[in-house]
Amino acid sequence: MGSKHIGMVGLGRMGANMARRLHLKGAEVIVYNRHTEKAIALARETGMRAAESLEALTQALPTPRVVWLMLPAGEATESHIDALLPLLSAGDILVNGANALYENSIAQSQRVEAAQIHYIDAGVSGGVWGLQEGYALMVGGDKHAVNAITPFLQALAPATDKGWLHCGPVGSGHFVKMIHNGIEYGMMQALAEGFAILQGKTEFGLDLAEIAEMWRYGSVVRSWLLDLTADTLAKDQALAGVAPVVADSGEGLWTVQAALAQKIPAPVITLALQMRWASQGRDDYAAKLLAMMRNQFGGHAVQKEV
Amino acid sequence: MGSKHIGMVGLGRMGANMARRLHLKGAEVIVYNRHTEKAIALARETGMRAAESLEALTQALPTPRVVWLMLPAGEATESHIDALLPLLSAGDILVNGANALYENSIAQSQRVEAAQIHYIDAGVSGGVWGLQEGYALMVGGDKHAVNAITPFLQALAPATDKGWLHCGPVGSGHFVKMIHNGIEYGMMQALAEGFAILQGKTEFGLDLAEIAEMWRYGSVVRSWLLDLTADTLAKDQALAGVAPVVADSGEGLWTVQAALAQKIPAPVITLALQMRWASQGRDDYAAKLLAMMRNQFGGHAVQKEV
Repeated sequence: MGSKHIGMVGLGRMGANMARRLHLKGAEVIVYNRHTEKAIALARETGMRAAESLEALTQALPTPRVVWLMLPAGEATESHIDALLPLLSAGDILVNGANALYENSIAQSQRVEAAQIHYIDAGVSGGVWGLQEGYALMVGGDKHAVNAITPFLQALAPATDKGWLHCGPVGSGHFVKMIHNGIEYGMMQALAEGFAILQGKTEFGLDLAEIAEMWRYGSVVRSWLLDLTADTLAKDQALAGVAPVVADSGEGLWTVQAALAQKIPAPVITLALQMRWASQGRDDYAAKLLAMMRNQFGGHAVQKEV
Repeated sequence: MGSKHIGMVGLGRMGANMARRLHLKGAEVIVYNRHTEKAIALARETGMRAAESLEALTQALPTPRVVWLMLPAGEATESHIDALLPLLSAGDILVNGANALYENSIAQSQRVEAAQIHYIDAGVSGGVWGLQEGYALMVGGDKHAVNAITPFLQALAPATDKGWLHCGPVGSGHFVKMIHNGIEYGMMQALAEGFAILQGKTEFGLDLAEIAEMWRYGSVVRSWLLDLTADTLAKDQALAGVAPVVADSGEGLWTVQAALAQKIPAPVITLALQMRWASQGRDDYAAKLLAMMRNQFGGHAVQKEV
């Protein structure tokens, strides 16, 4: 193992817990956040070090430095890279752990590598459970650079030899993570549809929480997503107070775009994405128009919007 | 625990392995199969008893008898019930473990219960892995009858308190199993689409087997279906010699029909089913017609069928 030092930039839910896991596994983690108080609070809680500026972060790290960015894709990541590049030295390693579009990551890598800095794109899965259970890590980049950060990958992953993979060249980590999320959209939608049909079968008086719990053992649909579904249903299977609106954050769309670019049908992932859009009201105009068409050709009543 | 005796009728892949698991867990299993040699071979292999006729089976079982049918739904199940009813006594229990349409099971139960025989519908999940890992069991029927077979459910399930559920009245077991399989269709299709897009991304040189294996740990899509996918890809990720044709065996269709009856959208499960039909060539006529339309309005060439 090379240096045990790693700088973690961005302490949202993912970044903060990843820093915690690295620290617990013995890495020397130095944390930085745009809002310094967040870094200081995490350092105070855990005993890791906080840097109050990117300068302080890069000065505290031995070379070759490893800096892991865990920031929202786009402007936040780009501006931190802009600020970091002059502070880093040739041979340092910059890891982008965001949920970024792989094509943007490839473009980003060219900018970073022009400054002799190694660039690695890392797709990170595991959400809020990663701290405890470990993260699945999908990594793209140069073999030498990936080897250098392997101890950190092994610490973040569920086990040193499980749940992390050097997928291929720069971009491939974020590409594989994107497809992972696309599959997630489809699996979630399939589970949700099935439980909706169970919920609608009122004459059987089914207990959806008990059914989900039972399926967790021995069934073909047992899965981590089912585990989470069982948790939710156990708390309140009426889902009172939950609005029927599902957000989407890019990776489903990118998966569909990748399928379109390859002319490979991916109808279930596509429809899972579109159902989220429908839940957001993005098909309301079409529904209004359909209601008006029915009104025109059949005289069917049109509901007034309230 | 009441009687430890149970008769297993139908020794296909499911029935034979369920008999084996019950036997291993200490039940007194008497097996019957239309082709007697199958029952005799299983009895010889395991030390359980074989019955050469349904008469012999019912005579060998102490009352109240428990007879578990593990036969194809429809004619095979119906004809065995016809043959069994005169051989059973009031208070005996008949369990139908087939993948049957729940409405047919309700109708069947009325015929059976008219003869004072208790009827239980049991949906059984677990496939060829159930012997080793246990089966998920979804059971519908009278509480008293379900209590009487609970020791067998506990033996078949992955654990005595896990993976089996008395879902509700007769029909509810097969209804819940049907929805389970519908969800399975959607989850499988989502996984398959994702891997197809990975496979199409040739410039990254991705190793699909390694990706599947990595996702098994810490990822959001970790699931038993992914475990099976990883197994398949590890053997031959080119899938050489596998025809691109996916069968469907009823439960996906029934799930969609249940959603239609409730007017609940289930687009992903529906499309997963329809993609299987497409893979069977069931959209070929539409594709031919589309090719001809393009030819007529645009003079586009039409491929000749070979």
